[in-house]
Amino acid sequence: MEIVQGKYLSKVNSPEDLKKIDRKDLPKLCEDLRQYIVDNVAAYGGHFGASLGVVELTIALHYVLNTPEDELIWDVGHQAYGHKILTGRKENFHTNRVYKGLSGFPKRTESEYDSFGVGHSSTSISAALGMAVASKYKNINKQHVAVIGDGAMTGGMAFEAMNHAGVSNSNMIIILNDNCMSIDPNVGALKDYLTDITTSKTYNKVKDEVWKVLGKVSKFGPSARSVISNVEKSIKTYLLKHSNLFESLKLRYFGPIDGHDIDHLISTLQDLKDIPGPKILHCITKKGKGYELAEQEQTKWHATGGFNKKTGQSSVPQKLTPEAPKYQQVFGHTIVELAEKNEKIVGITPAMPSGSSLNIMMEKMPDRAFDVGIAEQHAVTFSAGLATQGLVPFCNIYSTFMQRGYDQVIHDVCIQNLNVVFCLDRAGLVGADGATHHGAYDIAFMRCIPNMIVSAPMNERELRNLMYTAQLDNQGPFTIRYPRGKGVILDWKSPMEEIEIGKGKLISEGEKVAILSFGHVGNYVIEAKKIMAEQNINPAHYDMRFAKPLDEPLLHDIFSSFDAVLTIEDGCLQGGFGSAIIEFMVDHAYQSKVKRLGIPDNFIDHGTQTQLHHDCNYDATAICEAVSELLEIKINTNPIPLMKN
Amino acid sequence: MEIVQGKYLSKVNSPEDLKKIDRKDLPKLCEDLRQYIVDNVAAYGGHFGASLGVVELTIALHYVLNTPEDELIWDVGHQAYGHKILTGRKENFHTNRVYKGLSGFPKRTESEYDSFGVGHSSTSISAALGMAVASKYKNINKQHVAVIGDGAMTGGMAFEAMNHAGVSNSNMIIILNDNCMSIDPNVGALKDYLTDITTSKTYNKVKDEVWKVLGKVSKFGPSARSVISNVEKSIKTYLLKHSNLFESLKLRYFGPIDGHDIDHLISTLQDLKDIPGPKILHCITKKGKGYELAEQEQTKWHATGGFNKKTGQSSVPQKLTPEAPKYQQVFGHTIVELAEKNEKIVGITPAMPSGSSLNIMMEKMPDRAFDVGIAEQHAVTFSAGLATQGLVPFCNIYSTFMQRGYDQVIHDVCIQNLNVVFCLDRAGLVGADGATHHGAYDIAFMRCIPNMIVSAPMNERELRNLMYTAQLDNQGPFTIRYPRGKGVILDWKSPMEEIEIGKGKLISEGEKVAILSFGHVGNYVIEAKKIMAEQNINPAHYDMRFAKPLDEPLLHDIFSSFDAVLTIEDGCLQGGFGSAIIEFMVDHAYQSKVKRLGIPDNFIDHGTQTQLHHDCNYDATAICEAVSELLEIKINTNPIPLMKN
Repeated sequence: MEIVQGKYLSKVNSPEDLKKIDRKDLPKLCEDLRQYIVDNVAAYGGHFGASLGVVELTIALHYVLNTPEDELIWDVGHQAYGHKILTGRKENFHTNRVYKGLSGFPKRTESEYDSFGVGHSSTSISAALGMAVASKYKNINKQHVAVIGDGAMTGGMAFEAMNHAGVSNSNMIIILNDNCMSIDPNVGALKDYLTDITTSKTYNKVKDEVWKVLGKVSKFGPSARSVISNVEKSIKTYLLKHSNLFESLKLRYFGPIDGHDIDHLISTLQDLKDIPGPKILHCITKKGKGYELAEQEQTKWHATGGFNKKTGQSSVPQKLTPEAPKYQQVFGHTIVELAEKNEKIVGITPAMPSGSSLNIMMEKMPDRAFDVGIAEQHAVTFSAGLATQGLVPFCNIYSTFMQRGYDQVIHDVCIQNLNVVFCLDRAGLVGADGATHHGAYDIAFMRCIPNMIVSAPMNERELRNLMYTAQLDNQGPFTIRYPRGKGVILDWKSPMEEIEIGKGKLISEGEKVAILSFGHVGNYVIEAKKIMAEQNINPAHYDMRFAKPLDEPLLHDIFSSFDAVLTIEDGCLQGGFGSAIIEFMVDHAYQSKVKRLGIPDNFIDHGTQTQLHHDCNYDATAICEAVSELLEIKINTNPIPLMKN
Repeated sequence: MEIVQGKYLSKVNSPEDLKKIDRKDLPKLCEDLRQYIVDNVAAYGGHFGASLGVVELTIALHYVLNTPEDELIWDVGHQAYGHKILTGRKENFHTNRVYKGLSGFPKRTESEYDSFGVGHSSTSISAALGMAVASKYKNINKQHVAVIGDGAMTGGMAFEAMNHAGVSNSNMIIILNDNCMSIDPNVGALKDYLTDITTSKTYNKVKDEVWKVLGKVSKFGPSARSVISNVEKSIKTYLLKHSNLFESLKLRYFGPIDGHDIDHLISTLQDLKDIPGPKILHCITKKGKGYELAEQEQTKWHATGGFNKKTGQSSVPQKLTPEAPKYQQVFGHTIVELAEKNEKIVGITPAMPSGSSLNIMMEKMPDRAFDVGIAEQHAVTFSAGLATQGLVPFCNIYSTFMQRGYDQVIHDVCIQNLNVVFCLDRAGLVGADGATHHGAYDIAFMRCIPNMIVSAPMNERELRNLMYTAQLDNQGPFTIRYPRGKGVILDWKSPMEEIEIGKGKLISEGEKVAILSFGHVGNYVIEAKKIMAEQNINPAHYDMRFAKPLDEPLLHDIFSSFDAVLTIEDGCLQGGFGSAIIEFMVDHAYQSKVKRLGIPDNFIDHGTQTQLHHDCNYDATAICEAVSELLEIKINTNPIPLMKN
């Protein structure tokens, strides 16, 4: 599909080209760039609202800065589409987030203009400060700019970085891109504070108060009035200079300014370049700016599949047959169902209400479901605090973001053996978001913690049963990991039942090889077994359900009966589920041949989940091949077409 | 040793007793309590300055609050000695930090007065908020108090918690114990800000400024003067109420008040109890208060061994023979030595200059060594930023605190394959600090990350060689883990040499069993081999040095030659070094008998390192026993006396 470029955009392939555009024509370039993003995302899908919100900012930054010499870091990075388009990647932009195509996030190996790889939130100030300190040490004079949203600003590490920046005397500009939104509307006191500055309540309030007192002075006549006006000015200056949250942290604060006024942005940035030391520019922007539907429904339009530009209707072909639900939906409905019966249950999400489907509970039980902001560390310890009072918190965090609350899981939950249920959504390979977002390590990093139960459901019903089990009497720390995307069962709303902790399940009997699966990949085993059955090869299949504790009686049975064992997981091979199985085997002096399937020891780029499972050798084909290797026989695995997802 | 209790302290065994003391006599109780802490630490050692600084605060809190109904959470917790003494643990206090004795930190299983277990910094506000939200949900009216130092306030999660607290409308008091110190003097913009409030510069400055303008009004006579004074008052109120950092986060701010004025503390706390919502009380205290030497040299007296109360001289018996250095000292001197030759090297510590010995570099090369505050997340990504500019950051973080920068290691360092060297001090069991501080998991959680090199030196020389190797051309992410305490070599300052990445080393040839050690525990193997040699048992011994990448050629040799293999590490058995070895074995279809020694799958309490290694079965005795088990023969392991450490 050919995407038409506007007149001005067609002239720009690099920041160098951009600088040749007449400054008065930049608003037209903004329009072209915005249109190009809309057209591309309408055609191919992707993140949407965030990039539309920073079109002017993106152009202004590349117009004023000397990139890539000057370092420009986009926090999170899903707002960097404009940046990519302006820095040599316009013609490839249709490959954005596609297998082997451009990454959806800035990435150092993709372009010299991507100063720092991003994906997770709140890293940009630390990174920019490191660069600025390095430049200072090396006596190099250049700019270091971090563009960070007000949502990302609630992440603790942004605060840690500002605390350090304030005393570092390094040349850094922090651009606070304030649009009141993460994926969902922002929460927390900081948001209110920023709104407060923005609407100038602060200044108006002090003015009113002082005016009340000074009112009496006015009787002294007109020269007193002029004095009063001077007092006001002095107070305003004072307030902005010394009593602002950021000024408290010794960052010079400028703004708020309109982030869609390209001309004013350019002038301001030009001025800021010459002011030494760390400083912050507060820009007010609108997420989805310029595409009306996206402006109105910002959460819905955070990211989207392809759509009809005029109507906003999805152009993704609708399935005519009923489909299995997403795992996240199963979580969202099930927690409500459980909470209706068990008043101890509460729900926690760090800024992912819609992504986790906890928004269902937030609507139905607003006093029992908490969005704590982009703050995984706090989310975990807050949950621990709730648990000390006898509540049962379900703390829902994407596997990849759980990495950020790791110490709190060990130190605040597991050492104290508190009954916090960690629902790790997006566990395993996540698809189009790529390397920064794959939930590859959680089995390994959770399994090594004492007291932690580590489970994974093979399907929606098992997810429900695990959730049901986790809220029964005081089970201690309990991890349930499940993948991004759809399950496999249409009729998933079955009554729930307890699963004995640490008990695996025989899915199908067999001979010669035992296949031990952990989580949804068990469905690949079922698929593979069908192919192999046609060739009279019938391995046994066990859905182990728990990587910890292991089902030791079952494993004794298996290792006593099978000379060959295959493990499969949607997680890293180093220290993961398969490693747990071979630890058991070796500790008990069994000597079966074991092959382990899972994510190999390198970072996996983006693509569909199906493609990536195939590449990483743990789809149905790979299972057949592994069995063939274990049995030293040939199995015909053709044709297994790659499923679409 | 009998510690004498003062007249008032002898009457107090619980907060109930405390409440019977006449309020006017409380200063005397403070004196008694302070004296009791001094006497105990002088006799037995322990944390010191922090508890002396909060004597008045501790008594005031238990006097005003209804503990344990009301929840009292001590951030970090090494300041809670007074709290422990007042809550039923006075008579056992001499067992503090001793094997099987009281924990050096609050611990839920130790006392109902310990509302939340602590050890790591900055968790208290999240925990207290969780409790407060639970009480609100359960409609229970009680107090939730977090006592947090100004150092701990720089940790990002404290900010995340305040951001949430400010909009939660829950009943919580945050007591900011402001003494300008962590273990080392605090750093960062927040510290300056607090000092600024404390010394009232803020108010004075605005007063001066306004006065300058208003000066002209005075010509209007005395009634104008009185108006001016009203203006001043109004501005002061306004500034404190609306423009304070904490007020920005919607926390009502009170203070600063003198944290050593017991009477004023009590009145203030009584008032605060009745004010609804989240609030913060800023108390100024002095670390080491009441023991002059500790007031003067706060870092030195943060924690101490036994000492002579009058002179301050250590009463720990001095060794007459020269001793091996601490590993941290080897790090501290070696980084300077390397940095003198390689100008790319910089050093980073999150608030542990003296604990890591980076203070040596900070003194010699102040522009190349950075204390970033209690901010492990920022420390890691800041290092990543430095590395993008071609520098080689040595980021020194205790193993247990590395848990807090885990996401940043994966997302900012390893995905981008940046050359950041992580020196993990205090890796393995740390001794008296106990469960919260053991560095048990790093091998498992680092080993599963692609691109990461995971190494551990067997002795000081190897630490130096690994550090030397890590700064050679662009090695990528590089972990060097080493233990708390002393090494084994007197003459450690030898010239450094490169170690080939992933290469193990044969320490001694042998037969039948191959012992593969990782890190300092190799010295236990040497010890065990001596015992076994007397009985003609001679296993081979390899110092593997790398848990990742593994020395594959060497392992092929070993598994081809030995039917029995023993692995030993000062780290968790789940997913650690031993697991890496058996992954290799199974992947390559070897079938040796393997026994793995290391930290078992439960939390280990405090004790000396020697005692704990013995309990966890990986000292010399345990090695002999493991070899005996593998060979199915009996080895006489008596007598191996426990060494002191």
